[in-house]
Amino acid sequence: MKCTRCREKAVVQLRHHHSNFCRECFLLFFERQVERGIHKERMFTEEEPILVAVSGGKDSLALWDVLVRLGYRTTGLHLALGIGEYSADSTRKTEEFARARDLPLVVIRLEDEGAAVPELAAVTRRPACAACGTAKRHHFDRIAIERGFPVLATGHNLDDEAARLLGNVLHWQTRHLAKQSPVLQPTHARFVRKVKPLFRVTEYESAIYAFLRGIDYVVEECPNSVGATQLVYKEVLNRLEDASPGTKLTFLQEFLRSGRPAFAEPEGERNSGTCSRCGMPAYGETCSYCALLASAERRRARDAGDDDTEEREAAFGGRQRE
Amino acid sequence: MKCTRCREKAVVQLRHHHSNFCRECFLLFFERQVERGIHKERMFTEEEPILVAVSGGKDSLALWDVLVRLGYRTTGLHLALGIGEYSADSTRKTEEFARARDLPLVVIRLEDEGAAVPELAAVTRRPACAACGTAKRHHFDRIAIERGFPVLATGHNLDDEAARLLGNVLHWQTRHLAKQSPVLQPTHARFVRKVKPLFRVTEYESAIYAFLRGIDYVVEECPNSVGATQLVYKEVLNRLEDASPGTKLTFLQEFLRSGRPAFAEPEGERNSGTCSRCGMPAYGETCSYCALLASAERRRARDAGDDDTEEREAAFGGRQRE
Repeated sequence: MKCTRCREKAVVQLRHHHSNFCRECFLLFFERQVERGIHKERMFTEEEPILVAVSGGKDSLALWDVLVRLGYRTTGLHLALGIGEYSADSTRKTEEFARARDLPLVVIRLEDEGAAVPELAAVTRRPACAACGTAKRHHFDRIAIERGFPVLATGHNLDDEAARLLGNVLHWQTRHLAKQSPVLQPTHARFVRKVKPLFRVTEYESAIYAFLRGIDYVVEECPNSVGATQLVYKEVLNRLEDASPGTKLTFLQEFLRSGRPAFAEPEGERNSGTCSRCGMPAYGETCSYCALLASAERRRARDAGDDDTEEREAAFGGRQRE
Repeated sequence: MKCTRCREKAVVQLRHHHSNFCRECFLLFFERQVERGIHKERMFTEEEPILVAVSGGKDSLALWDVLVRLGYRTTGLHLALGIGEYSADSTRKTEEFARARDLPLVVIRLEDEGAAVPELAAVTRRPACAACGTAKRHHFDRIAIERGFPVLATGHNLDDEAARLLGNVLHWQTRHLAKQSPVLQPTHARFVRKVKPLFRVTEYESAIYAFLRGIDYVVEECPNSVGATQLVYKEVLNRLEDASPGTKLTFLQEFLRSGRPAFAEPEGERNSGTCSRCGMPAYGETCSYCALLASAERRRARDAGDDDTEEREAAFGGRQRE
């Protein structure tokens, strides 16, 4: 198997691009795919400082790495989620990546504000992934605003975006379809632009890139992702890709070209409220993150007050907890 | 397992309807699903005579059977495709079904006009399924017009429609999405309305119905369907249905409700040409079926004339045929 570009020995085969690549040509191909996406979708310019959300997994570290190689000015932002050993490992690998390359990194520890994901999920009795998403959105926006970044980049790849699109399509979530894009313009003067520079590269390509660049990333999936519907969507998309290479890329690109415009809505009024608790944009009295924290606080207070009640109920063979 | 409706012993479990049924209640459920689809989509009235396209498979025979039970006036239309033993079996079972129930049946034998599917495919070098589709559309329309039927019903079920929708969505075929519907209004004054009364019932339900009604249908799939992309789509939809019962029905129903309207186009001018050869509606000089026949005739004539050439070439180790 020879490299399609330089005829040296190839190490990677990409059926959907009808190409094989040696190490050097694959890295070049990957960089170009990312750069093309950035330019085509006008994600950001070389002058803009970019805040990169970094989990410690292959995608976000590959993203940070390739943005640096392409000459962009980046700062990493890592949220330590407090999900046991998985999170400890993620934070450690992210910090090592930044230190080895002398890159600026901001680390936020949810535990420091009593908001570790498992705790938030337990006390609010909401799914862990919902609590986690709310916390991430809040801190991503907050840090970007506080430190003056006009744009936040995340490591979502083609598989992530195609799976999200499939989910939206299976339920014909037209409002979500109207908004799904590799570039999300801010819906509030205090929000920032959000971009997904890896939206044209597959999970496989991003893993190969991380491997060939010698990036030490967290291989384990988040323990909360087990059984997630998103994984079923990725599985069936892989089956379709296998039967017809290129399916995922066509699905997403044609959606952006022909599908999404059909769902475009007239721009609604911008959300202009402010959270009375943290000062971030909010639809109601408080933003959804502060509402989540408040709910956790109430639940903790009630549980503390309920201690006696529960002991009494237990003594009398009382009700089971959920 | 008890029947959800009458509490007798259930024989069928339908996870996506959260129901179990005994034989009688399942047949009633099936009839109601079909009738609801007919009324909701205004497919036809009890006064209109319906031409039912019948292949001899479970879906079309179940459709014919249920329409008769619901009191509609039906005539069957069967195309003998000339695909070896498979077609012979299909024609025999269709004829037996009609004879046993004393139902009117029109049979068209493609072989009689030198247009058996394998022959058409071979001489025109087009895929068998393309030639077959063209022949079916032509004869369905022709018989409906000649015999004064305002509407033609086909046995497409939920699995067929969901698979077609998935294919259209994966490629964002917006023109096809605009038109996909269980009721197709005629695009020409000489075409008729086409309807799919089984679009709300799954392949599984239609097989159970045929079995419980004692219908003897052709179990084999058409030999040309092996490897068809449609089958991969059905497979992944079954995987999604398994992970989340009701996925197929939601996918199709929400599409009709929320998705399709987004793709609606202003009604184009109706096709008003007439085929110079058969007198049926045509976009160009001839309709696509007559164009197919003409292409087959040209190829046969050329092949007959080429005989000498080929023998000469073979003698000199000449070119390979495709």
